[in-house]
Amino acid sequence: MTNIVVDIDLNCDMGESYGRWQLGADEEIMPLITSASVACGFHGGDPHVMRKTVALALAHGVAVGSHPSLPDLMGFGRRAMAVSAQELKDYICYQTGALREFLRVQGAELQHVKAHGILYDMMEKDAALADAAGDAVAESGSKELIMVALAAGRCEARGRARGLRVAAEGFADRAYNVDGTLVSRKQPGSLIDDPQRAASQAVRMATQGKVRTIDGTDIDLAVHTICCHGDTPGAPRIVRAVREALEQAGCRIRPMREFLFLS
Amino acid sequence: MTNIVVDIDLNCDMGESYGRWQLGADEEIMPLITSASVACGFHGGDPHVMRKTVALALAHGVAVGSHPSLPDLMGFGRRAMAVSAQELKDYICYQTGALREFLRVQGAELQHVKAHGILYDMMEKDAALADAAGDAVAESGSKELIMVALAAGRCEARGRARGLRVAAEGFADRAYNVDGTLVSRKQPGSLIDDPQRAASQAVRMATQGKVRTIDGTDIDLAVHTICCHGDTPGAPRIVRAVREALEQAGCRIRPMREFLFLS
Amino acid sequence: MTNIVVDIDLNCDMGESYGRWQLGADEEIMPLITSASVACGFHGGDPHVMRKTVALALAHGVAVGSHPSLPDLMGFGRRAMAVSAQELKDYICYQTGALREFLRVQGAELQHVKAHGILYDMMEKDAALADAAGDAVAESGSKELIMVALAAGRCEARGRARGLRVAAEGFADRAYNVDGTLVSRKQPGSLIDDPQRAASQAVRMATQGKVRTIDGTDIDLAVHTICCHGDTPGAPRIVRAVREALEQAGCRIRPMREFLFLS
Amino acid sequence: MTNIVVDIDLNCDMGESYGRWQLGADEEIMPLITSASVACGFHGGDPHVMRKTVALALAHGVAVGSHPSLPDLMGFGRRAMAVSAQELKDYICYQTGALREFLRVQGAELQHVKAHGILYDMMEKDAALADAAGDAVAESGSKELIMVALAAGRCEARGRARGLRVAAEGFADRAYNVDGTLVSRKQPGSLIDDPQRAASQAVRMATQGKVRTIDGTDIDLAVHTICCHGDTPGAPRIVRAVREALEQAGCRIRPMREFLFLS
Repeated sequence: MTNIVVDIDLNCDMGESYGRWQLGADEEIMPLITSASVACGFHGGDPHVMRKTVALALAHGVAVGSHPSLPDLMGFGRRAMAVSAQELKDYICYQTGALREFLRVQGAELQHVKAHGILYDMMEKDAALADAAGDAVAESGSKELIMVALAAGRCEARGRARGLRVAAEGFADRAYNVDGTLVSRKQPGSLIDDPQRAASQAVRMATQGKVRTIDGTDIDLAVHTICCHGDTPGAPRIVRAVREALEQAGCRIRPMREFLFLS
Repeated sequence: MTNIVVDIDLNCDMGESYGRWQLGADEEIMPLITSASVACGFHGGDPHVMRKTVALALAHGVAVGSHPSLPDLMGFGRRAMAVSAQELKDYICYQTGALREFLRVQGAELQHVKAHGILYDMMEKDAALADAAGDAVAESGSKELIMVALAAGRCEARGRARGLRVAAEGFADRAYNVDGTLVSRKQPGSLIDDPQRAASQAVRMATQGKVRTIDGTDIDLAVHTICCHGDTPGAPRIVRAVREALEQAGCRIRPMREFLFLS
Repeated sequence: MTNIVVDIDLNCDMGESYGRWQLGADEEIMPLITSASVACGFHGGDPHVMRKTVALALAHGVAVGSHPSLPDLMGFGRRAMAVSAQELKDYICYQTGALREFLRVQGAELQHVKAHGILYDMMEKDAALADAAGDAVAESGSKELIMVALAAGRCEARGRARGLRVAAEGFADRAYNVDGTLVSRKQPGSLIDDPQRAASQAVRMATQGKVRTIDGTDIDLAVHTICCHGDTPGAPRIVRAVREALEQAGCRIRPMREFLFLS
Repeated sequence: MTNIVVDIDLNCDMGESYGRWQLGADEEIMPLITSASVACGFHGGDPHVMRKTVALALAHGVAVGSHPSLPDLMGFGRRAMAVSAQELKDYICYQTGALREFLRVQGAELQHVKAHGILYDMMEKDAALADAAGDAVAESGSKELIMVALAAGRCEARGRARGLRVAAEGFADRAYNVDGTLVSRKQPGSLIDDPQRAASQAVRMATQGKVRTIDGTDIDLAVHTICCHGDTPGAPRIVRAVREALEQAGCRIRPMREFLFLS
């Protein structure tokens, strides 16, 4: 009997402090994850925070991606804004470049790009925005650069269709709708802050490719990377539980760039 | 009798518009210069302006540098702020990286880094800041990257001492003190907005390595690049006069990276 | 035979410069208008610009209102953002208070509040936002404070229903849809930059209470104040033409607070 | 033998959260103090935070002042900037007005103005800035408005000389230099985070008008109000200890406006 090893990446939003304000438990979480999506100044993450976050990630062998946002510091990038496709492309380019320079100085390469907050949702709803983000990734000139997108969503499909290296992402700490989208943060039950429930959801995604939705239905969800939000209350405990459960389930947890290849 | 050809670069601050606000006459000036120092968002230059400015520069064969600033949009980067050396380094890294990505997308390389506004002056007065900027350039990993610094100033000396590729800069449209520093913008006579005077000052710098100071003394000033400010009133006429005078004086006007080599 | 004199206010957006960036021709336009809607820092108008704009208005006997915006400096307040009713109320409160203090220091009273840019449109489409703005005006404690709203629109109706002093506004330099809304800036023909056409539209609104829409239909539009945008190309000429035409048509042009009373 | 009752105000910086970022323990501290200096958006305190902070203060009978700052969100208003006297005046006007409107809506009056962070220090060193702040307070038109200034410092003297109502402020949680200035935050020992030491320092200021400096000398320091910083680690415990010690020492703790009169 063969033993199939599942490769899975564990990612978290990191570096969302800003100036005098601390957010998240980056020092506790970084040793537990394999990929960090680092804020680039538009919703959090000033240049000092960015440098420190990149250094912390590299010290733990964590691969780094950019986490670009709408320009809304006051709203933490969680309010929809009517930006054009060109504006979005320019915002991703600006923020990704800023982060890439901190990596460059520290001798490392950018692994991925993942949209932050409401932008992630907007790109699922609006094909022009999804394509603009795809353009930003495609035109940056490195074929290895990965675009992280909602598993089974519009961005994943469109990105893959155009030949991008796309990582399908599942969420351990968020409830799912039956169509595979995330339950809105404004609705009750959208956040899963019980570590064991989050861990179970993660294991089921990673090993069975399934997730139970908020109304109890099972849907298919093939994922390369599992996300826990850094600013969910009790995040370090959730991430730890998720990691331990994945390990116990026999998953090999490592950065997505080590096992995600262009088809 | 030999005919010695003088190589000289002609640079201008570009891309200082922001959102709804237009500043400068970039479309008129870009065809006249060989290097553009492009604002990176901290004093001007939002991501859309940056993209357009880079495209405009490349369309005219103009080499592009970053023009990082203190984070003071309201004060256009012209008010001193007590930033630490580390903060400055991080700000230069962030802004330079953002600009570099727009170049990368358009298939071009960053030529230089030049501090904007009061930061340029602060680096002349404070060795720790000069070295921080030097660090930022040195650590970015490309030996070709040029640091533009005030001719005969502290940054030029310290940058060169550590092995950086440094371009010495003279100003056509600014009056000089006898110590080689620029007359403060707050003082009368600091701006030279007469095209012929600016042109004469440029030619004398380029061909004789000298400049007449505000009190009438001649001082030595060896320069690789001559700057005209894009937001000086009548800037396009000044730049045109400077260019024509340099050409008539037999100078070869081209991007600094084509003739500036590490000694 | 009696001669009915029509009272009409002529308003313009003023003070939309920011830091180093100039916008609009405030010095030319201010002598021509009777009410100024002054930017309060969120889309334009830093504190220095606000002080100067208030002083300029008072020097010309122009009444001053606040012109609050969404917090989007980069987008000049012209991009929709998903703000909550409470957020909107707080933004109006903040910006109006800031402006009121500049008036207070200069010994004057705030006349009106008028939403800027896309917010003006959003309030027409979303009753919760219209009511939030109405709340902000009502709770500020001065019964005299006027809310300026699109003539025949949702805000006018809801504001009046709750007992606010509401000024109905018509636009001289914008085309109308048949439902009385403004043609979107993104559509061709939305801006009327011919001074004579703008003047005719203004006179017809003021004296007949009618406007011809973009598709040629006449609709009713009773207005107290007529707006010309300060950043429309050729704005001073448009405002001058509008003013002269209104005077020739026998209108009495004066600040809305002088003739607009609670019913 | 008569028993002289000492009136003393206890103030704290409040409302320094911003958007997604929490700072300080306002809910715990507010019940313990009599005056709150509320951030106005330039270093912290977005409009929502301002509204909530004002409501919290009023719910506890705490008097409210504005806490204007340099425009440096990234540096939390703790980095010196070369602003002109006019710029400072405009910044104070803008921020104070914004806060005043939130008070107005909630039916309350502004008690005081107190500069935040490095601005507080800059005003001690630069008479032009001290006078600019005095102008901002004087011109706002309410004789009752109090200016809070470092006890025995330049601003206190200049403000009083021009007829302002000035409250002299002492710090429970900061070490003093022998000239009565605060030890810089950059130096070791500048912060007093031991509740008992802070309490003792407060009691000695309030009842004896003296403070022991960092080098062990006693200096005179007559104060009307004692400040504890809201973002000092362990702030609620410090404030509680200070309050209890003041009460035990027989002080009557109440808002400065209740006992501070123009001489």
